Amino acid sequence: MNSRLIAAALVGALTFTTSRACAADPLPSWNDGKAKQSIITFVEKVTKQGSPDFVPGPERIAVFDNDGTLWAEQPMYFQVLFIFDRIEELAPQHPEWKDKEPFASVLKGDVKAALAGGEHAIMEMAMATHAGMTTEEFEKIVKDWIATAKHPVTKRSYTEMVYQPMLELLAYLRENGFKTFIVSGGGIEFMRVWTEKVYGIPPEQVVGSSIKTKYELRDGKPVLVRLPEINFIDDKDGKPVGINQHIGRRPIAAFGNSDGDLQMLEWTTAGQGPRFGLIVHHTDAEREWAYDRESHIGRLNQALDEAPKRGWVVIDMKRDWKLIFPFQK
Amino acid sequence: MNSRLIAAALVGALTFTTSRACAADPLPSWNDGKAKQSIITFVEKVTKQGSPDFVPGPERIAVFDNDGTLWAEQPMYFQVLFIFDRIEELAPQHPEWKDKEPFASVLKGDVKAALAGGEHAIMEMAMATHAGMTTEEFEKIVKDWIATAKHPVTKRSYTEMVYQPMLELLAYLRENGFKTFIVSGGGIEFMRVWTEKVYGIPPEQVVGSSIKTKYELRDGKPVLVRLPEINFIDDKDGKPVGINQHIGRRPIAAFGNSDGDLQMLEWTTAGQGPRFGLIVHHTDAEREWAYDRESHIGRLNQALDEAPKRGWVVIDMKRDWKLIFPFQK
Repeated sequence: MNSRLIAAALVGALTFTTSRACAADPLPSWNDGKAKQSIITFVEKVTKQGSPDFVPGPERIAVFDNDGTLWAEQPMYFQVLFIFDRIEELAPQHPEWKDKEPFASVLKGDVKAALAGGEHAIMEMAMATHAGMTTEEFEKIVKDWIATAKHPVTKRSYTEMVYQPMLELLAYLRENGFKTFIVSGGGIEFMRVWTEKVYGIPPEQVVGSSIKTKYELRDGKPVLVRLPEINFIDDKDGKPVGINQHIGRRPIAAFGNSDGDLQMLEWTTAGQGPRFGLIVHHTDAEREWAYDRESHIGRLNQALDEAPKRGWVVIDMKRDWKLIFPFQK
Repeated sequence: MNSRLIAAALVGALTFTTSRACAADPLPSWNDGKAKQSIITFVEKVTKQGSPDFVPGPERIAVFDNDGTLWAEQPMYFQVLFIFDRIEELAPQHPEWKDKEPFASVLKGDVKAALAGGEHAIMEMAMATHAGMTTEEFEKIVKDWIATAKHPVTKRSYTEMVYQPMLELLAYLRENGFKTFIVSGGGIEFMRVWTEKVYGIPPEQVVGSSIKTKYELRDGKPVLVRLPEINFIDDKDGKPVGINQHIGRRPIAAFGNSDGDLQMLEWTTAGQGPRFGLIVHHTDAEREWAYDRESHIGRLNQALDEAPKRGWVVIDMKRDWKLIFPFQK
C-alpha cells in the first residue's frame, strides 16, 4: 500500500465516521414534525461554511431559561421548595419563627399561607436561607440538598426532573460549536452547584439572580460572605441586561417557556442575521403539567401571543416530545 | 504495507508532532530563569494526568488583570486617555464645558488640573462619555477610537502596547487547557470590543467595572441603554466578588501588577491544591516605564510586600523579558 493509498484509506475512514454521525438522529426524543425540523434546519444553515447564514463558532451563543425550560417548575419553583426545607432545618436556631410570618406557616406546612405575602414574603424567606454564610458554605448546603431532596409529587430527585428532549438539544447544539448558557431568574449560586453535572453547563456559563457578596479575611483566610441584599434580578427585562453583563454579545438562539423570557427572546431574535427563538409550551397534564395563561408559576401569556408575530417556534410538549423525563425511558 | 504498519506509521507521525511541540519553547520572549521556570513547572504539574497536582481541564481557570499586566498603563490608564479624546470630540455639543471643571481643563489640554478633582472628577468625566447611548453605539465609539488613536509617547496604537511575553503566556496556558479571563478595574464594555482580537479572550471571559443598563423598545426595536450610574467596581476587594459573580469558581492562577490585584491574588492562591500567583513588576525605564510603591498609576506596594510571604512570583520586566512590546521585535 503506497502513501496515496494510505491517504485514501484515511479519507475513507473519516468520511465513513462523518456519514454515520450525520445519519444518527441527534434529537431522538423529539417526534418528527415542524418543531424538530425547524431546529435542525437552523443548526445546519448557521454551521454550513460558505452559506450566507453561516455564523462563526465564537458567535454561536445559545441561552436557555431553566425553570420550566430545562427542568420542571411545578407545583412550585424548586428553589422555593429548597427555601421551605431550609426553614425547617434552621428552625431550631430561630425560635422566633414560630410566631413570625411567613416562617410560621412554612413550619405548619401551610404553603398557601406562607406564600400569601407575595414577593415580599418570598424575598424575606430567601434572605433568611441564602445569606449570612460564605459562598463555600452555601455551595455545600445546596450540594447536600440536591443530593437528597425529593420532589413532592414524583418522589424523584429534582435533577431527574429535567427534560430529556432539552438535554438532547443542549448536546446537539454543543456538538455543532454552540456555547450554551443558562439565563434564569433562579439564584446563580443555587444553580451553579449542579448545572455542570446535569446539563454539561459550567458555572461560568450560568447567569442568574444574585445577592451581594463581601470579601473578607477571616484569620488571614479569604472568604466571600453572602449578604442579605439583592444584587441583580435576572428576570423579564433583566434578562437582556444579564446577558449583556455576563456574555457581552447577543445570542443567536434563545429558549424559554414563560413571560419572564419574553425580553430575552425579543433581544435575541431582533439581532441581525439568522436567529432562533423557541418556547416550551406545557401542554401535557398526564406526563408533566399543563398550564399557561393563568398560571401563577411560569405564566405564558404575552409571549404566546408574540410567538407567531416574531417567528418563534412553540413546542407542544404533548405532541412534540416522545418522552418528558429521562426516567420515563 | 499492512494495516499494522499503517497504524505504526500513524503513531510515529503523531509522536513526532508531539515531540516537536514539546521541544519548542512556549515562552520565547522570556529569559531563562526562575520566573519562566516557575510558570512551566506549574503548568506541567497541573496538566500531568495521574500526578497528585493534576487539575481537571474545566477547573484550569486563569485570571489576568489588564492595565499594567497585559498592556501598558503609563503615562495614564488608556481608558482615561479615551475619556479625554471623547470630551474633545463631544465639546461642540456641550458649550457649557468651557467653564465647567474638570471638562474645561481637559479642553485646555491641562491634564494635571483635570485630574486634580480626584476620583470624583474622573467619575464625572466617565459618565459624560460612557453613558447616554445604547450598548451598540458605545461599541462603535470604542471600535473607532481603538482603530485610530495613538499613544502620546510611543505614537503607536494602544493595541500594539501589549506585552509580548504575556501574549505568549496566554497562548501557552490555553494550549494546556486553561480558560483565560480578564479581571480588570477597566470598563467591561470598553475592553470587550478588542480583547478577542488582541488577546484571544472572548467577551464572555472579560470581567470589569460596569455601569447600569436598561432594556427598552425603541420603535419596537430592543436596545440596551447605558445609564450614568455605577453598577460594579471591579477593583481591589471587588475583584474576588467579580470573579465569583462571573466565573463562579476559584481560579488556580492569577496575574496582576498592582495593589488593585492584591485580593484577587489572595483569593486565588488561598484555594486548596496547586495555585499560582504572579506580579509583573515595572522595572524597565528604558524599554517601558519603571514605577512601583509611589506611583499614582498602578501602585505596587502592599502586594510587593505580600509576594514573598505568599509565594507569588515577581517578574522583573527588565531582567525577565527579552522584549516588552511586539513592535520591538
